Amino acid sequence: MKNFKLTVAYDGTRYSGWQRQGNAPNTVQGRIEAVLGEIFGHKIEIHGSGRTDAGVHALGQTASFAAETRLSPDELRVGLNRYLPQDIAVTAVEEMPERFHARLLARRKTYVYRLWIRDWPDVFGRRFTYGVGAMPNAEEMRLAAERLTGRHDFIGYSSLKKAKKSTVRTLESIRVEDAGDELRLVFIGDGFLYNMARIISGTLLEVGLGKRDIPGAARALTTLDRADAGPTLPACGLTLVSVEY
Amino acid sequence: MKNFKLTVAYDGTRYSGWQRQGNAPNTVQGRIEAVLGEIFGHKIEIHGSGRTDAGVHALGQTASFAAETRLSPDELRVGLNRYLPQDIAVTAVEEMPERFHARLLARRKTYVYRLWIRDWPDVFGRRFTYGVGAMPNAEEMRLAAERLTGRHDFIGYSSLKKAKKSTVRTLESIRVEDAGDELRLVFIGDGFLYNMARIISGTLLEVGLGKRDIPGAARALTTLDRADAGPTLPACGLTLVSVEY
Repeated sequence: MKNFKLTVAYDGTRYSGWQRQGNAPNTVQGRIEAVLGEIFGHKIEIHGSGRTDAGVHALGQTASFAAETRLSPDELRVGLNRYLPQDIAVTAVEEMPERFHARLLARRKTYVYRLWIRDWPDVFGRRFTYGVGAMPNAEEMRLAAERLTGRHDFIGYSSLKKAKKSTVRTLESIRVEDAGDELRLVFIGDGFLYNMARIISGTLLEVGLGKRDIPGAARALTTLDRADAGPTLPACGLTLVSVEY
Repeated sequence: MKNFKLTVAYDGTRYSGWQRQGNAPNTVQGRIEAVLGEIFGHKIEIHGSGRTDAGVHALGQTASFAAETRLSPDELRVGLNRYLPQDIAVTAVEEMPERFHARLLARRKTYVYRLWIRDWPDVFGRRFTYGVGAMPNAEEMRLAAERLTGRHDFIGYSSLKKAKKSTVRTLESIRVEDAGDELRLVFIGDGFLYNMARIISGTLLEVGLGKRDIPGAARALTTLDRADAGPTLPACGLTLVSVEY
């Protein structure tokens, strides 16, 4: 058996998220598994680094799977890209030690939430940004972001109904980057709860638009109450940039 | 009468080009004129800096028009963006001296042709790049590009059947920029003939792929024969970046 790591980019617009689900026919994992099934002649299960929600994009999602094969990593990559749709690309295939697992060993993830700040539409990137229509106060957002970084129970910033497992995560940094037509929120952490990046983005955006004060951005860290955090911003603005091991 | 200059960005994918035409219902000029007609209550004709072909994009196309109005440039911009589709954006409106004309006074244009050089699809920018699937030899392309810059009769690099007016243009520079996943051909000149940027791109790409030698790239400058230049690359890769006055 060989163990492989895939690095995958996708435009998530028309997918029901990463994870294969019984009732959602169009998922990124499902599409990749279908092509691998064709290549190997039998069912292959892949393990993503984690789920991405419906409509969320990825530049560097990762996944692993084991297979008995004489194909080289590069042959696999070319074969996958030949049969995958144009909005999913396998940018790298690597052979890994037997113990490698894309989800269990993920140490660090980077997400970016892209806010379009002009009062005209983003004609080139509109599938990948969320339009705010005005420049928020980035300095206030940076101050609020600082209060959210560190090791905390982030359940107040997630859409989890109830959590069986720990909801403590370390958010290493949140950078607020002025990129001309866009303001980018770059999140680096050891793991992200369901909707966490989108809810923190919504909370920081409220600060930037003067709808919430800086201490208010961090309130849900102590109350653990979803009602104390901001809105869940739309999926289209979020991209999983990379996963580190 | 006030004289206005518009700066316009568009995703040209679903348009039959810039210029309004009797039989092509969906043009960028036609869409903008329709909205101006609604705003002013009567027909307005706008003058673009020049045509862009069906499927070609723009970051900074310009156009001018005269109107009797009390609206400020900013009110006009906001009104236009409110009623234009999401793939056309008016990024600036300025009031200009009476003699300003977007086509007649255009001094300099910049186009970029974007070549996607990976052997996987460009999932985020595929509407705006042309996929080559391999890195061409950029250094050879630069050497060939140098032979094409300067003041020349470019009719051999155009799709014009016959030319009533002069086909001499000055191509100030062609930069070949390595931008990671893309190779970008940036053209700056005083004017571009029909399909000229796409045909020069096709000619340079042949050089980069080893299908044409460097002197061969410039042959059509002396023979003036379209058959001596390379193929017309697809419209999707081309963007009009800016027009200077």
